[in-house]
Amino acid sequence: MNFKEELAGRVEEAQQVISKYMPESTGYQKVVIDAMHDSVEAGGKRLRPVILGATYRMFGGEGELAEPFMAALEMIHTYSLVHDDLPAMDNDTLRRGKPTTWVSYGEGMAVLAGDALLNYAYETAAAAFDMARDGEEMKRVVKALQILARKAGIYGMVGGQTADVESEKNNVPIDAERLIFIHRLKTGALLESAFMVGAALAGASDEELATLSEVALKTGVAFQIQDDILDVVGDEALLGKNIGSDEESGKETYVTIYGMDKARADVALLSEQAATLIASFGRECEFLTMLIKSLVERAF
Amino acid sequence: MNFKEELAGRVEEAQQVISKYMPESTGYQKVVIDAMHDSVEAGGKRLRPVILGATYRMFGGEGELAEPFMAALEMIHTYSLVHDDLPAMDNDTLRRGKPTTWVSYGEGMAVLAGDALLNYAYETAAAAFDMARDGEEMKRVVKALQILARKAGIYGMVGGQTADVESEKNNVPIDAERLIFIHRLKTGALLESAFMVGAALAGASDEELATLSEVALKTGVAFQIQDDILDVVGDEALLGKNIGSDEESGKETYVTIYGMDKARADVALLSEQAATLIASFGRECEFLTMLIKSLVERAF
Repeated sequence: MNFKEELAGRVEEAQQVISKYMPESTGYQKVVIDAMHDSVEAGGKRLRPVILGATYRMFGGEGELAEPFMAALEMIHTYSLVHDDLPAMDNDTLRRGKPTTWVSYGEGMAVLAGDALLNYAYETAAAAFDMARDGEEMKRVVKALQILARKAGIYGMVGGQTADVESEKNNVPIDAERLIFIHRLKTGALLESAFMVGAALAGASDEELATLSEVALKTGVAFQIQDDILDVVGDEALLGKNIGSDEESGKETYVTIYGMDKARADVALLSEQAATLIASFGRECEFLTMLIKSLVERAF
Repeated sequence: MNFKEELAGRVEEAQQVISKYMPESTGYQKVVIDAMHDSVEAGGKRLRPVILGATYRMFGGEGELAEPFMAALEMIHTYSLVHDDLPAMDNDTLRRGKPTTWVSYGEGMAVLAGDALLNYAYETAAAAFDMARDGEEMKRVVKALQILARKAGIYGMVGGQTADVESEKNNVPIDAERLIFIHRLKTGALLESAFMVGAALAGASDEELATLSEVALKTGVAFQIQDDILDVVGDEALLGKNIGSDEESGKETYVTIYGMDKARADVALLSEQAATLIASFGRECEFLTMLIKSLVERAF
């Protein structure tokens, strides 16, 4: 497999699916829909929908049932970025080299654009019920929707953001345990969604879903540690955002707590463990294994 | 029927249902769950869940299937208040006589608390699938969930908020058409959800749901015009918020556009039309009729 080519093809597919499910910019609410489009189309890697589509195929899924969920998951990911960038949160003016939503549309509209993306994500996912061909597929959509909501909320991404914001704004100290909690939930939870929702829609068992959850969490934590590493050694132009920002703000990271050597070693270990787990299914998993490897060993 | 007594009983029931479905305050994410509780328990009228429960009964619904949706709808209503109160939006420091969420928890946590409520609303609603006893009830839950998401998002409440924020922040002038759009969507859409979701869960037909949508929109617009009237003539202590704020900010309202006489006449007319429509079902509707009347003719 030429991984780069394969990935480019799947990203393009995901891009088309997302576009297909985005709402038309019209009516008195046009400006918020424009903001939704701008933020979604700002050049994300489409990592989560690509993974969702890949696990759907890996477990034998066919047809379009995964598509609404691919789009919904990217909308949820994007809403979280739009809100994270707000002055009240990370106060970021630049994302993927472009002005953030609140810079372009104002703070109030950025709050609404995030809310709009989140609601529309669920509206889009719920449209999958109309595509289910029988009671069995109905049940799979139910399970997928329940995973999607769980992993986005307080027991998932929002939970991780909360522990993060509490430390940054209220000066609650970050120790190793809290940092891992933040990494597992803030980044890991939506990756769990990606790995698990695709498989659930294809009929994977609860045991298989639990294994995929572990794969996702290991990948997510490795990804986040790599982020901490890149904040120290990365290239600003390639990252498309300000680097050294953690150090400037005096923020505790995996690197400041454990040092660069252990950080690098743990990234390699977690990546290896995730690959072993995914190989344990005995299914075609070359693409996902290479994707995990490329994610955690990335230079930007 | 002693309406006041009946209403108090149903509000208490709704309160218990909401409490039952709220998450436990624990873990690293405790602070955001505390903020969710504080905002939900800040003494709302529970109007939407009461209506949802009432239409569920009116169309013959029995058992607990409506409960997760009653709780979910109140969470959605509350998230919208938490975000509306933010400095970036209405910049309100007081809600129902208490400090708003951002005042108590900080702006970043208030953004997250709103996001948490919204995600948890869908997680809660999606739990209703596990209570469905057969394929028919599954389909009703699907319809209810689709209505819930539609009416909360860009084609519902968020759409109305967008047109409102655009006028306030970007100085887009408010004419009569835009004002009615705002009133129908910003207030009306969640009332549509309340009237329609309860009925959908009890198996109401699409035609019946369309009529209920009209009832809700007429009630919502009347309610909002009454709000504009009370902003001029209301009693600050009873309202629990600052009055005269529309005038101070130079905001166009139904009263400034049409004058007080037409505003009062239209409230009476819309209320009457809503009552006539709901009576047209030929079902027991005394409670809902009196509720609509009490809402639009309220003095605070």
